[in-house]
Amino acid sequence: MRAFLDPDFHPGLLGGGQLGRMLLAAGFRFQQRFSVLDPDPRAPCFDLCPPGQFLQGALTDHDRVCSFAENLDLLTVEIENVSTSALRALRDRGVVVRPAPEVIELVQDKLVQKRFLRERGFPTADFVPVDRANDLVGLRDRLPGVLKLRRAGYDGRGVRVLKSEADFDQAFEQPALLEHLVPFEREIAVLVSRNASGEIACYDAVEMEFHPEQNLVELLFAPARLSDTLQKRARELACDLANTLGIEGLLAVEMFVHEERLLINEIAPRPHNSGHHTIEACVTSQFEQHLRAILNLPPGDPRLVQPAVMINLLGESGSAASFEAKTAQVRKLLARPGVHLHLYGKRESRPFRKMGHITVTDANLEQALKTAREIRRQIGNGISATGPG
Amino acid sequence: MRAFLDPDFHPGLLGGGQLGRMLLAAGFRFQQRFSVLDPDPRAPCFDLCPPGQFLQGALTDHDRVCSFAENLDLLTVEIENVSTSALRALRDRGVVVRPAPEVIELVQDKLVQKRFLRERGFPTADFVPVDRANDLVGLRDRLPGVLKLRRAGYDGRGVRVLKSEADFDQAFEQPALLEHLVPFEREIAVLVSRNASGEIACYDAVEMEFHPEQNLVELLFAPARLSDTLQKRARELACDLANTLGIEGLLAVEMFVHEERLLINEIAPRPHNSGHHTIEACVTSQFEQHLRAILNLPPGDPRLVQPAVMINLLGESGSAASFEAKTAQVRKLLARPGVHLHLYGKRESRPFRKMGHITVTDANLEQALKTAREIRRQIGNGISATGPG
Repeated sequence: MRAFLDPDFHPGLLGGGQLGRMLLAAGFRFQQRFSVLDPDPRAPCFDLCPPGQFLQGALTDHDRVCSFAENLDLLTVEIENVSTSALRALRDRGVVVRPAPEVIELVQDKLVQKRFLRERGFPTADFVPVDRANDLVGLRDRLPGVLKLRRAGYDGRGVRVLKSEADFDQAFEQPALLEHLVPFEREIAVLVSRNASGEIACYDAVEMEFHPEQNLVELLFAPARLSDTLQKRARELACDLANTLGIEGLLAVEMFVHEERLLINEIAPRPHNSGHHTIEACVTSQFEQHLRAILNLPPGDPRLVQPAVMINLLGESGSAASFEAKTAQVRKLLARPGVHLHLYGKRESRPFRKMGHITVTDANLEQALKTAREIRRQIGNGISATGPG
Repeated sequence: MRAFLDPDFHPGLLGGGQLGRMLLAAGFRFQQRFSVLDPDPRAPCFDLCPPGQFLQGALTDHDRVCSFAENLDLLTVEIENVSTSALRALRDRGVVVRPAPEVIELVQDKLVQKRFLRERGFPTADFVPVDRANDLVGLRDRLPGVLKLRRAGYDGRGVRVLKSEADFDQAFEQPALLEHLVPFEREIAVLVSRNASGEIACYDAVEMEFHPEQNLVELLFAPARLSDTLQKRARELACDLANTLGIEGLLAVEMFVHEERLLINEIAPRPHNSGHHTIEACVTSQFEQHLRAILNLPPGDPRLVQPAVMINLLGESGSAASFEAKTAQVRKLLARPGVHLHLYGKRESRPFRKMGHITVTDANLEQALKTAREIRRQIGNGISATGPG
């Protein structure tokens, strides 16, 4: 691969959402000018791309992805739902693709992903394939369970909790898997990065609080409330998995904690919502860490410098507050020490769409949690301002 | 002024250099899309501006600045050398200009600036105007002194040290001032921000080490090695000055420390090279702080979270190392914990041009200084990579 400081070095990104936006911001520090492909002509990355660097197209369109990336030196992703046949073709043409298409394929299908984890001896909840709704009839004894679409489900979409047969009418018609509903005490996530040289760096586990209904992270904090043994075990699991996958880039590993055991829930081969706090709270942000990994640079120090809490700012229905009202709200919360605001510049606000996030840092985790919960009460999701039109 | 979260709110920036580049990066977090004007069609801000937002033009051209900004809501600067007549005209047309044109004018002329400080009772070195080289003849008794051009000198340009009459041949023909050469023990800088509501936040003083010849900051560290009394006094001086100026935005105040006294050397009404460490080392970066101030938002917490050292990466003459060599160098230094790299994407490297900077953070200042000095020895200015062509 051409030296990344070579003026002709040209990296590309599939997906122009908020993860890409924050990756681009990290990229500027290393003098990296990404070209970005996204179906939305005004995706969050648009605001950070000079003329000709932001392109519109479907990420699942083999030909479009190939034409976008054929002249790039390096290609990465901020979302899994991309054409991996295109990634393979591009790799054959000499484009360095990180993470590898095989890793992305593995993650695209939750059944394949779970089977891989099982076969390699990684702990997961029990699961069975459910090709169509009817198959559930024979699976009564496995309730309560979580029905997950094999493909294209995320942010709570494509996931249904089935408590009893009465819930069968909510089943998907598309291929899915039924997982045992783990009555977990907590859910955590561990971010780990690995570069082509095999150098690994692992962040401390973060703990998530979920919205009761939408299965969306409502609040995330670091460090997680785990025993040193479990913290260590969680990091070991994440590192083992990164090595087993041979991933080049960042890997997010979501885990359940149940009766002092860890079960891997889902993985993502990219920067992750559970790592936003690293921008302010860690020596190296997850975005710079992903960049270092795909450029095959040494990993940055992942150490947590101060405790942090992250809140997603979610979209509202049409009846949103006026911009004046939202600005007044933002003014109020920015008056609190240690409050970091990140708005993604999304043009359209939809219910539960991620419009931004807030990270609260404080030398004391309890104080940071207190502040974050006060902010949550104060704003609800009320400052999901849409971006410039 | 229109609410800053209003999609139609449109801020503008005069100057597209590295200070602007880092200001834009902070702006994205608040969903601000700046339009930028710079004479260089590929200035550092170009990489961060979507189509139509980066414009080329002379900042001292009254008409060009007016046409650039006439439809903006808010206009700020990352450099003082701009047409203040245009800023006045724009203000009259309803554009909010922060900092005010009067403050920028005051700073543009070092003689006017020094006289203002003196009249308002702020401590400075003694000085006399020198309208032309010949005037020096009558000023022998004031040597050794520092001759400074009244206008447009920065980064060591427009400054000459006159030890004796023998140096008179180095004098400028343009209007200048001759300052008493203060045999200072140290030079420090204090950054303070003030918004339109008069809310003020002051950073801890930082200490500078200068390159012996080029009068360029070679290394900067925080916290400065000052007694609590002097730290407090330095912050008081900076806050008093911000209030006296009634500045709306960030103010950088460079001071000499001589025999336990503080003398104000120069001031800048904008983010400053001496504040780069705030990105990683403080709760709020100087760039977000300037943004908060010009948007009349509450100031962020300026507290230093961990000690930091900043090194400017300066340009070389034509015989620069290959990109492969530079990449290998960067790989080496990025392997050190707490090393943060910032490259500015400048297309052309010139001797002593600021091409980027490195911030080293560490819980221990002495360790951070040790690492920074090792890096300085390792790279010299050798990784001043030019940006993508």
